[in-house]
Amino acid sequence: MTLVTLLDYAGVAVFAATGALAASRKQLDIIGFLFLASVTGIGGGTFRDLILGVPVFWVENPDHVLVCAAVAVFVFFSAHRVESRYKLLLWLDAVGLAAFSTIGAAKGLAITGSPVVAIVTGMLTATFGGILRDLLAGEPSVLLKPEIYVTAALAGAAVYTFGDLAALPPALSYAAGFAAAFAVRGGALKFGWAFPAYRSRPGRRPEDIP
Amino acid sequence: MTLVTLLDYAGVAVFAATGALAASRKQLDIIGFLFLASVTGIGGGTFRDLILGVPVFWVENPDHVLVCAAVAVFVFFSAHRVESRYKLLLWLDAVGLAAFSTIGAAKGLAITGSPVVAIVTGMLTATFGGILRDLLAGEPSVLLKPEIYVTAALAGAAVYTFGDLAALPPALSYAAGFAAAFAVRGGALKFGWAFPAYRSRPGRRPEDIP
Amino acid sequence: MTLVTLLDYAGVAVFAATGALAASRKQLDIIGFLFLASVTGIGGGTFRDLILGVPVFWVENPDHVLVCAAVAVFVFFSAHRVESRYKLLLWLDAVGLAAFSTIGAAKGLAITGSPVVAIVTGMLTATFGGILRDLLAGEPSVLLKPEIYVTAALAGAAVYTFGDLAALPPALSYAAGFAAAFAVRGGALKFGWAFPAYRSRPGRRPEDIP
Repeated sequence: MTLVTLLDYAGVAVFAATGALAASRKQLDIIGFLFLASVTGIGGGTFRDLILGVPVFWVENPDHVLVCAAVAVFVFFSAHRVESRYKLLLWLDAVGLAAFSTIGAAKGLAITGSPVVAIVTGMLTATFGGILRDLLAGEPSVLLKPEIYVTAALAGAAVYTFGDLAALPPALSYAAGFAAAFAVRGGALKFGWAFPAYRSRPGRRPEDIP
Repeated sequence: MTLVTLLDYAGVAVFAATGALAASRKQLDIIGFLFLASVTGIGGGTFRDLILGVPVFWVENPDHVLVCAAVAVFVFFSAHRVESRYKLLLWLDAVGLAAFSTIGAAKGLAITGSPVVAIVTGMLTATFGGILRDLLAGEPSVLLKPEIYVTAALAGAAVYTFGDLAALPPALSYAAGFAAAFAVRGGALKFGWAFPAYRSRPGRRPEDIP
Repeated sequence: MTLVTLLDYAGVAVFAATGALAASRKQLDIIGFLFLASVTGIGGGTFRDLILGVPVFWVENPDHVLVCAAVAVFVFFSAHRVESRYKLLLWLDAVGLAAFSTIGAAKGLAITGSPVVAIVTGMLTATFGGILRDLLAGEPSVLLKPEIYVTAALAGAAVYTFGDLAALPPALSYAAGFAAAFAVRGGALKFGWAFPAYRSRPGRRPEDIP
């Protein structure tokens, strides 16, 4: 098992844990834990593979589903312990984000050769699972929070892609992309980094325009 | 027309009816009825086929879309009659759920040979249409209700899959899967069965953790 | 570049602008603008291509993504100017709607030969991006508003499809479909056209039925 594969499974497990914790906040039953854990853990990669027109990764190798199921059961019986370590989980989530953004970009670039597509698939792989989790659990979307999250995925995907275009050795491109995403997300976690939001004169709803 | 095909169309029609009733609760126009009926009736199977990488069933044979359209028009002109029979509809919905969970598992197993994938596609086929309906109509998701719904789909998909792995004749696997899903869902309807929810110490939101 | 291609890019740009304006209402940062603009601009066509089982258009030619990105950046720095021209944008959006409904129907018909599928893919291409935008931004869905929107997409897709079936020259089918969608949507904008909603006796929620 290569390091990339290991990081891939780790990412699935951590994202699944955040899905299971959302299920615990909504006081769902064990099946709800399984559902939200799986959607969060494998949703981003599923969407990436659909868009790239390649077989969905967990249909080819269902181990990822089993990882999500194991995490869901574990969290169901220990959510209060897991969430008391939420800070740790956020950092693990940053590892998953960094892993998924580079893995998604690498797959997009390998299949299409297009840097634009690679950056988009890297972003989607890292963020779509969390977006689905929030939609299905009826929680405020990670998209709408001022936290730097999607940006970190973008940074990881872009750095990997440019590294590959610059003909760096694959391991170096992976490492640089991973480091970039983790640094951006970690900085946001540690120092509260945020982009300036669009505040000055936000667009109004059509009916409010005189 | 085999019994399985018949149950498939019946499932599409019943799910479409629940979508059209959601449109009537939101007081949409006829096009809104058509849209929600179709999303609910064919959404689950569409997602299943996308994930399995096979042609989407209603693209190959659009009769299913016409069934949804006919149901939508019928409910538009008679929603108050349909909903006064809501109890009946819930039982018909249980038939659809049982049909879709076994049909979805059978398709997943036939194409991938993986029991894990078969169980997931069975669950998705039976539940994804209703999840989409609730998301698009802005109603509380069936996922978040304490009712046993996803679990019944899981039971049907799992029993079919294990029947097939145990080399039962296909008709018997179908019948056992269908019966399992229908019994679980019917029990929930009749006796108010519910799983223990995660209540004791639900995970808190990150900002509430001291 | 043919007129159809031009209308296609124009539609992507206008839909992307409505996504970026939703981001400005939610006071997101620049990455949020990029995300919502892209989802709205290319979401409908992406879903159409997935369902038809053909390569996703922007994976083959990522120019559409770059158009969305350019529009997002432009709106980020000028949203108050863009929204003060919201009336103009609504009319441009009607152009995009008309273009996407005929382009989507043409693609569906060319690939499957089925008029039913063509009408569905035309509707989806024109409306799915906006539906996703509203879901992700947490705004009331365009689906649930009394405005005639989905209907205009249906009209354009149906007229194109019947034109093609009647063996009209392609340019004439495109023009007729485009004109039909634009006329229906334009009439709704100018004269406040709306369908009768289902008001008389809307379906009740199951728990309210005695």
